Amino acid sequence: MTTTVHPSTPTLLITDVRLTDGTRVDVSIAGGRIAALGPDLPRTPGVAQEDGAGALLLPGFVEGHTHLDKTHWGLPWYRNEVGPNLVDRIENERHWRAHSGHDAGVQSLALARAFLQAGTTRLRTHVDVDTDAGLRHLHGVLATRDTLRDALDLQIVAFPQSGLLKRRGTGALLDDALAAGADVLGALDPALIDGDPVASLDLTFDLAQRHGKPVDIHLHEPGEVGAFTLGLLLDRVAALGMQGRVVISHAFCLGALPERERDALLARLADLRVALLTTGPAGTPVPPLKACLDHGVTLFGGNDGIRDTWTPYGTPDMLERAMLIAMRYGLRRDDDLALAFACVSTSAAHGCGFAAYGLHVGARADLVLVDTDTLAHAITARPPRKLVVANGRIVARTP
Amino acid sequence: MTTTVHPSTPTLLITDVRLTDGTRVDVSIAGGRIAALGPDLPRTPGVAQEDGAGALLLPGFVEGHTHLDKTHWGLPWYRNEVGPNLVDRIENERHWRAHSGHDAGVQSLALARAFLQAGTTRLRTHVDVDTDAGLRHLHGVLATRDTLRDALDLQIVAFPQSGLLKRRGTGALLDDALAAGADVLGALDPALIDGDPVASLDLTFDLAQRHGKPVDIHLHEPGEVGAFTLGLLLDRVAALGMQGRVVISHAFCLGALPERERDALLARLADLRVALLTTGPAGTPVPPLKACLDHGVTLFGGNDGIRDTWTPYGTPDMLERAMLIAMRYGLRRDDDLALAFACVSTSAAHGCGFAAYGLHVGARADLVLVDTDTLAHAITARPPRKLVVANGRIVARTP
Repeated sequence: MTTTVHPSTPTLLITDVRLTDGTRVDVSIAGGRIAALGPDLPRTPGVAQEDGAGALLLPGFVEGHTHLDKTHWGLPWYRNEVGPNLVDRIENERHWRAHSGHDAGVQSLALARAFLQAGTTRLRTHVDVDTDAGLRHLHGVLATRDTLRDALDLQIVAFPQSGLLKRRGTGALLDDALAAGADVLGALDPALIDGDPVASLDLTFDLAQRHGKPVDIHLHEPGEVGAFTLGLLLDRVAALGMQGRVVISHAFCLGALPERERDALLARLADLRVALLTTGPAGTPVPPLKACLDHGVTLFGGNDGIRDTWTPYGTPDMLERAMLIAMRYGLRRDDDLALAFACVSTSAAHGCGFAAYGLHVGARADLVLVDTDTLAHAITARPPRKLVVANGRIVARTP
Repeated sequence: MTTTVHPSTPTLLITDVRLTDGTRVDVSIAGGRIAALGPDLPRTPGVAQEDGAGALLLPGFVEGHTHLDKTHWGLPWYRNEVGPNLVDRIENERHWRAHSGHDAGVQSLALARAFLQAGTTRLRTHVDVDTDAGLRHLHGVLATRDTLRDALDLQIVAFPQSGLLKRRGTGALLDDALAAGADVLGALDPALIDGDPVASLDLTFDLAQRHGKPVDIHLHEPGEVGAFTLGLLLDRVAALGMQGRVVISHAFCLGALPERERDALLARLADLRVALLTTGPAGTPVPPLKACLDHGVTLFGGNDGIRDTWTPYGTPDMLERAMLIAMRYGLRRDDDLALAFACVSTSAAHGCGFAAYGLHVGARADLVLVDTDTLAHAITARPPRKLVVANGRIVARTP
């Protein structure tokens, strides 16, 4: 059945693509939206037409957590000689930021464009704000957002990478960052980095409330200490009415707790509509995917840093991230691989609050075509993107 | 310094490539061997010449453990609806083998060629031998070995995928397989599949001894039961003089033992020159890489199955496998990533016993050129292979 709701004149018709259930459809686009989706849509003279030739149609991908501002993407290789601890990486990076001449505007634009080419049309990026960098990285990424505003739906998290309480003046900088256009307030390990989980969380939620902005906290704290911090955080979500406006990134602790304790936390997360983000790290405890689904907790995916001073890994290909997440959770069945794809599509859009997302009439026309048999095939093979449409316009194609 | 030892007339000169330490060299090839390696080698009129144009020179890659015979590579997507347990996968596959019309010869050749194209020049493949399949898969893979004999150094393991003791006649089939040209005797979980670790191991080692063949055992058995089986196995290696001729694939148990017990086993493994194989599985305990290195135990890498009824994952790109292994072990520093590359090159050649391997005069001329800054860059970016040379001949190039 074909539904048509959008009143504008069509601007693009993509013919003969397959949905993941095998249905062959056409897609009509008007005003940057999906205007119609169904078999044998009418050809309108003068409207640009693309022959999908039976390619698989996927929604534009969603990167739920990266750091565009810090990447070396496209630059000469950064030789990593960093020590093994979180603080080693933070210190090394702060030194590098101050001395390398790194340009967060140039680099974030290069990587954001690579994301678009590979089919990502919505992206949440955490941007370093600290007393050394000030708002320099934020201004660079704001410029990137502006440059790509017609194609890429970019959320900016003002992120205190060096800690919130440890360096006087960080709170004021975050205040400025939110006023300057950051969409989300970030936070980092209130106990193990800041050393005072109550004060750290109170300051974070106070800032977020004053600006009416959501929160995305990096919680690397393991096991019981992570669970303790998580409990304090959920108390504040409930007390301040922040339901549906908080993401917990990493949440390693949820992968290393006794099942009863873990499930009690998952039930609270579901009740407060707090979402979780994972990169699917291979050797680290992770929030349990299927238990999250069973409890109704949104779990979505992202790369974290891509080729920066922290990590040599990561690519702007969210199909690869879906594969890594699927491998981390030991998913092998086709229906299970679809859960991993949800992590970089519908669940990520839901968790981050990206509006009008999906393959339905009225959604923003963010589309990816790939030449694979099935969705599972697309995830494991990660083929070239035959066509990428962002906000109704073609932004990439592979001949 | 340039060394020249090989007396034959050069057949190919590759100019201007970079070693991983940055040195610029030329490579002269004669009789399928590296005849000279050094800066500014003499140009011989009439000898084919390739301009490396500063590309990074790597040795041909080594796949230490795969299953060429079972892959669906190049076929329509296999929809995986298999249950979660090892026995589910074994039963599902046996049923599929009997009813799908799968041709192990055609499929192994397709995947082996894909490996060559991606730079793998040495490969150990485990081939199913059981009372249903008989030697059908073996004959298919023997034909592939013959077809590619000038390029791919292929080791065949006769592998009792359905267990050795459970199905009468399997031992006789393995006997036939070794007589028919299999290079290595395989084995599988003597306790948890065969149910009688002593009888299973005794039969395995008796067969191997009679044929003078090495052993490669799939040991998935976890924790303490795996350690128990491993101990029994090492007793037999010592008693029968099989030092340096045994590989233990997977060895998950070594990732889940108390450190003292683990280290005692690692010391025995080193003493008996028993090597370990890992795929770097994301969510499973693995033998500890650095502890293995500290003890002098060879740990190398492989894909295991590639796109078959067991798994939708895997590619014939050993740079990707090196990346996955590196991610599994949390390696981030450039010097650590070189350890992951060793898993798919020198360590795998050593563990499997592939002769004349490496980038030195006299070694078989198996070479890969990639356009990356560094080795770590090659592992994380996995770029197209600019040139692949196998046994002295060019087998692939990317324009």
